[in-house]
Amino acid sequence: MLTHEPSVIVLLTDFGLQDPYVGIMKGVISSIAPHAPIIDLTHGITSQDIRHGAIVLASSYRWFPRGAVFLSVVDPGVGTARQAILLETSSGFFIAPDNGLLTPILEEADIRSCHAITNPDMMLPDLSATFHGRDLFAPAAAHIASGTAPAKAGPQIKPDTCKKLLFPVNSENRQEGEWYGEILYTDIYGNLVTSFPNNLPRNDKGSWLLGTGRSGDIELRRTYGDVTPGEPVAYRGSAGYLELAIRNGSAAAVFQARSGDRVILQGPR
Amino acid sequence: MLTHEPSVIVLLTDFGLQDPYVGIMKGVISSIAPHAPIIDLTHGITSQDIRHGAIVLASSYRWFPRGAVFLSVVDPGVGTARQAILLETSSGFFIAPDNGLLTPILEEADIRSCHAITNPDMMLPDLSATFHGRDLFAPAAAHIASGTAPAKAGPQIKPDTCKKLLFPVNSENRQEGEWYGEILYTDIYGNLVTSFPNNLPRNDKGSWLLGTGRSGDIELRRTYGDVTPGEPVAYRGSAGYLELAIRNGSAAAVFQARSGDRVILQGPR
Amino acid sequence: MLTHEPSVIVLLTDFGLQDPYVGIMKGVISSIAPHAPIIDLTHGITSQDIRHGAIVLASSYRWFPRGAVFLSVVDPGVGTARQAILLETSSGFFIAPDNGLLTPILEEADIRSCHAITNPDMMLPDLSATFHGRDLFAPAAAHIASGTAPAKAGPQIKPDTCKKLLFPVNSENRQEGEWYGEILYTDIYGNLVTSFPNNLPRNDKGSWLLGTGRSGDIELRRTYGDVTPGEPVAYRGSAGYLELAIRNGSAAAVFQARSGDRVILQGPR
Repeated sequence: MLTHEPSVIVLLTDFGLQDPYVGIMKGVISSIAPHAPIIDLTHGITSQDIRHGAIVLASSYRWFPRGAVFLSVVDPGVGTARQAILLETSSGFFIAPDNGLLTPILEEADIRSCHAITNPDMMLPDLSATFHGRDLFAPAAAHIASGTAPAKAGPQIKPDTCKKLLFPVNSENRQEGEWYGEILYTDIYGNLVTSFPNNLPRNDKGSWLLGTGRSGDIELRRTYGDVTPGEPVAYRGSAGYLELAIRNGSAAAVFQARSGDRVILQGPR
Repeated sequence: MLTHEPSVIVLLTDFGLQDPYVGIMKGVISSIAPHAPIIDLTHGITSQDIRHGAIVLASSYRWFPRGAVFLSVVDPGVGTARQAILLETSSGFFIAPDNGLLTPILEEADIRSCHAITNPDMMLPDLSATFHGRDLFAPAAAHIASGTAPAKAGPQIKPDTCKKLLFPVNSENRQEGEWYGEILYTDIYGNLVTSFPNNLPRNDKGSWLLGTGRSGDIELRRTYGDVTPGEPVAYRGSAGYLELAIRNGSAAAVFQARSGDRVILQGPR
Repeated sequence: MLTHEPSVIVLLTDFGLQDPYVGIMKGVISSIAPHAPIIDLTHGITSQDIRHGAIVLASSYRWFPRGAVFLSVVDPGVGTARQAILLETSSGFFIAPDNGLLTPILEEADIRSCHAITNPDMMLPDLSATFHGRDLFAPAAAHIASGTAPAKAGPQIKPDTCKKLLFPVNSENRQEGEWYGEILYTDIYGNLVTSFPNNLPRNDKGSWLLGTGRSGDIELRRTYGDVTPGEPVAYRGSAGYLELAIRNGSAAAVFQARSGDRVILQGPR
């Protein structure tokens, strides 16, 4: 009989699904917490791209049950002095290398505790130098999902000592009524997710225009179907940011746009 | 204690696994129905190709437990007036946008009820215009899997008012003893799945021949191993349709064939 | 009420995730053993590459719970006379076509029993000629995970009659102090996994050098972070074999190396 119902463990990595790495992590988890459900958030983070992982995690975690254990591994510094950390928030637990992957969580979540993960009892007996996903992060997540108290993971640390990435800051040219941002990432459809949040101030004077260097000005609409096939469209995206798309096509291909490219937003005049 | 054991939820989408979309849908499902098992049928449907999704669903659903909830999202019209529908059949429940994705189910399954999904209690509070997989379809599937009656989803509609795709009709030239069909799709091995059903009439007079424009005539055999490596082979496929393959090779590559190409079947003379 | 808690079923195939084949296998499993957890080890085995599948299975199985049921399908001979086999070991159960896929298990595991799978009660009623993953292997695994005794699968056979692949044997040139091996596979990062086991004899006289024809001599270090970005590094890999990598880059691309290429290891002099 279970006395504690284990929490769901949510995985985000750059391991892909070609190799057995993700499967092996699940094997380790199920050896420790056989009843913990496991959900793959994604294993398609661009290889070693911590910033990409941080953005995807930030736009996804609120859709999971409270108390979920988010295990995120994008870890180019594996085996070096970088710490492993565990954040407890009102949304759930976040386990990751301390390399900036948790930047948006550190900035926006309600943090209840922050620990370094150093307790050997929460790791596999032999720690390899190159696969802490298997040897450290997976077992730590399994133990937390099974009800182990975060304080057992290791010494408490101050959240503001954790490593943070510098995220794109949208800038404004008041005189021109323009904002400057960038493309955060492109998805499988070639849709361009920008750094402009969806919650633009309401207006009834005119329409908003969004564009990259190559796209020209695109009017803000509700959804893809509001334009004819092949036409570009800007809209409030499901991840919380304005997006650019081509109906039935790929904006990334047509505009030759990619992550990091500059985007301009013009308000109504 | 569970009073109702939740049904398995089976996912089919064109979301791919690179982006977090599928993971987010599972997060929503597990928030509502934490004990419902989730199986990925595939997320590799060609982007926005409703017909491809319909064919894959049709050739797959009978391998799942009775009562399964099939959640299918290939949804280029998301956010427009297209309805979301829920079919109850003797095989299980089918939830999808009303865009033709359920055509084969509407045509061949034993339909018990058909409802539009309009009840806000079965959706997330804020319905985005571009990700109904997350905001509408996932929560609806989670509620149905948890035992909510289909009638709660919304008004009953007549199945024959649901949108249907025109599927390839194989045609016959009696004089020549030939049938004309097409390639439904090619799989990861480069095998070509045709529109000819497996259940050809028995005969003992001669062999059946199948071919595309580039393949020449290929004799119907039992399995790949019945020909030598590198040789083409036709056989009764596991999806219920005749297939063409190259043993240890790719028929799609060798015959430069793809979905929609014409295929000819010649019976014994 | 469950009287027996079903074992976890671990899947390894070359089916990929584009097609519905893996999803259909899970549908069959969940129809027979609805409470058996299923873990995807990988479906990214190179198409029909039995040797690749055998290597990945061998380097992965020990990370799963004891009693796990490993269902491995890389099966170019499907539908021919090749047998389906079931090995019971102290680590768990291994189900596969008898084509060499279980070579490392047959060689290194503690084998308790070995059976051919011939019992129709452990298969689907209609056995197709081309998809035994669905019709034979998935139901057999579901029955074993549910507690069916291996002896029910079919007649006992001698493990040494099972088909084995010839695996690369590392050779030694004592005079030169050199070993010759090969690249077993390359992973998603372009890291090269060699056939040299990690457990080199300790030495304090000098360093070990590893290299392909194109890489030059690379010194053995602990992890990626021990060299500067862009530099090559050799290290004891997490799969149990020496590996070659480029920090923040792809050794496979830079050295134009691939599976089967020769690798030379030089000990300290």
